[in-house]
Amino acid sequence: ASGSMLPQQVCIIDQTGLPHQFRVVEIDSVRQMAEAIRNMQVRGAPLIGAAAAYGMALASLESDDEKHLQESARLLLASRPTAVNLRWALERMLERLLPVSPHLRCEYAWREAGCIADEDVVINHAIGQQGLNLLRELARGKSRRLNILTHCNAGWLATVDWGTALAPVYAAFDAGMDVHVWVDETRPRNQGASLTAWELAQHGIPFTVICDNAGGHLMQHGQVDCVIVGADRVTRTGDVCNKIGTYLKALAAFDNQIPFYVAVPTPTIDWRIESGVRDIPIEERDPREVTTISGLADDGTVRTLSLTPAGSMAANPAFDVTPARLVTGIITEHGCVTPNDLIRIHQEMKE
Amino acid sequence: ASGSMLPQQVCIIDQTGLPHQFRVVEIDSVRQMAEAIRNMQVRGAPLIGAAAAYGMALASLESDDEKHLQESARLLLASRPTAVNLRWALERMLERLLPVSPHLRCEYAWREAGCIADEDVVINHAIGQQGLNLLRELARGKSRRLNILTHCNAGWLATVDWGTALAPVYAAFDAGMDVHVWVDETRPRNQGASLTAWELAQHGIPFTVICDNAGGHLMQHGQVDCVIVGADRVTRTGDVCNKIGTYLKALAAFDNQIPFYVAVPTPTIDWRIESGVRDIPIEERDPREVTTISGLADDGTVRTLSLTPAGSMAANPAFDVTPARLVTGIITEHGCVTPNDLIRIHQEMKE
Repeated sequence: ASGSMLPQQVCIIDQTGLPHQFRVVEIDSVRQMAEAIRNMQVRGAPLIGAAAAYGMALASLESDDEKHLQESARLLLASRPTAVNLRWALERMLERLLPVSPHLRCEYAWREAGCIADEDVVINHAIGQQGLNLLRELARGKSRRLNILTHCNAGWLATVDWGTALAPVYAAFDAGMDVHVWVDETRPRNQGASLTAWELAQHGIPFTVICDNAGGHLMQHGQVDCVIVGADRVTRTGDVCNKIGTYLKALAAFDNQIPFYVAVPTPTIDWRIESGVRDIPIEERDPREVTTISGLADDGTVRTLSLTPAGSMAANPAFDVTPARLVTGIITEHGCVTPNDLIRIHQEMKE
Repeated sequence: ASGSMLPQQVCIIDQTGLPHQFRVVEIDSVRQMAEAIRNMQVRGAPLIGAAAAYGMALASLESDDEKHLQESARLLLASRPTAVNLRWALERMLERLLPVSPHLRCEYAWREAGCIADEDVVINHAIGQQGLNLLRELARGKSRRLNILTHCNAGWLATVDWGTALAPVYAAFDAGMDVHVWVDETRPRNQGASLTAWELAQHGIPFTVICDNAGGHLMQHGQVDCVIVGADRVTRTGDVCNKIGTYLKALAAFDNQIPFYVAVPTPTIDWRIESGVRDIPIEERDPREVTTISGLADDGTVRTLSLTPAGSMAANPAFDVTPARLVTGIITEHGCVTPNDLIRIHQEMKE
């Protein structure tokens, strides 16, 4: 009955066009949403959680019967294997929708997806404030700007708003702190050079793009005060699965006694598993992401170039796992805890 | 008198065109050689040593007076700051040329440059044989292929022949061993994806190109049996200066108890310094190497694309230093030694 008042589509920013092209794409079926997640037009663990929830809302427009909703959830779940937010959001949607009468499911679905999105904003704002306290602590007594290194993109593009790893940076900048960000390029898809650089430039925050290879050298020479990254899945023991290459930065931070923080909303924590290296499925993506690259040509067109000799084999694992022993703190909406104390947050959430 | 019988130019492979274009460039002045080293048409620590020696031979054609030779040496030395082979070759040339009568210098210069080039081949062949012994040891008892990870290009393109890091790989392959190479892309200039991949493909050696971010993950999952890299300068204490990002791979190898070898001819060892991080000058190259990339377009032309938002700042340190504590062994033409024992080679060489 109220179906006619409900949205019929969802708009997303197509992140594959940035920073060269800003395109908004209308998604009007669950199948199209799954495809947008798979091809990374929509990306970032918290955002794909929210996008999957909206995918279920689109599914409920198509049919409110249980079979279609279950199949839609399976379709969305299969779009990316590593970020646990996808599973979390889909389970939450099914738990909310299946017990109610079919004719109510569509309205409930849009409302629940809206809640997930709104909660993400609140959570990330809280992460920003928690991280701001840490950055203020690090800046105390320093007469120069605070240098923060980040890998990949965990800014507002990767979430509904604010971001996770970048939320403390935005909070610090907005509070008048003198901050500067080392932006890891993040091959193969260059989310750092394209998305993080674009976000920070939009906000006026000083940043410098570096190759993924450079961070260790900068740390050896005192040019990094802390590392903050997001995550796609954190185990209850504090192992952190994030964009490929994060582990290398964590090793370098540890070797140079530089704090290494991971900023995550609690839906990114997978309370069911212990060992990140053993238990988290690592997505293997198309080798062409390694052998080719896209960018802006002189004539203003976006083009793709081949980087390797014809016929070269390539491997493309999309994530790696940073063992908890290398992590200084995990910043959640409930505060910053050591990996060992993460389980306490779980207990508090259940109480 | 014999000047008319001497070469008037030197031919180089222009490495900036590979793997897409194979170009041979004729170098006919010391100024042109310095420029070819600076813009990396000629690159690789051992090769720029030999190239600088030939640069001095070209200088001696221009004038045999001491002032011109000294100025030419300064010009060549300034072309790249980090690889010590450049200084080593120039000092050796001046020591040989300045004591003799000016009219003999030109002939002596070509002969000495030829000796340096010939010695490099012999040295690298010896490194290959020393490394082969290590690889045979590692392969013992393994029923599957041996996986070697390398960073940047230290193959025959980087030397007069054979290479340093790749010399053991060529030796192992030619001896019938089942080897496979993980080739780090090596941003920003992609010497791995372009040069190492090209060399290995020419030789028929199985390889897989990976992003610089991927090595740690592969090591965590038992997919790397050893790392072998070259170096631009090694201190007498065994600190290793090599292409930016090498330090990160050394940390990951150490964390996963994987042997990390550095293959260097003794002219790459700087016996005068102790601390790599403190004493080795790290070249800072053009930020456009980070913000742009070149590759092969569909239409067969080589093009350059912009990767970052317009106006983005970038930093581009070209090398980093791997502390001796992370190095399993240094493979020289005299054998493989631990960093601690490197000084013994110096003593033996003086005896």
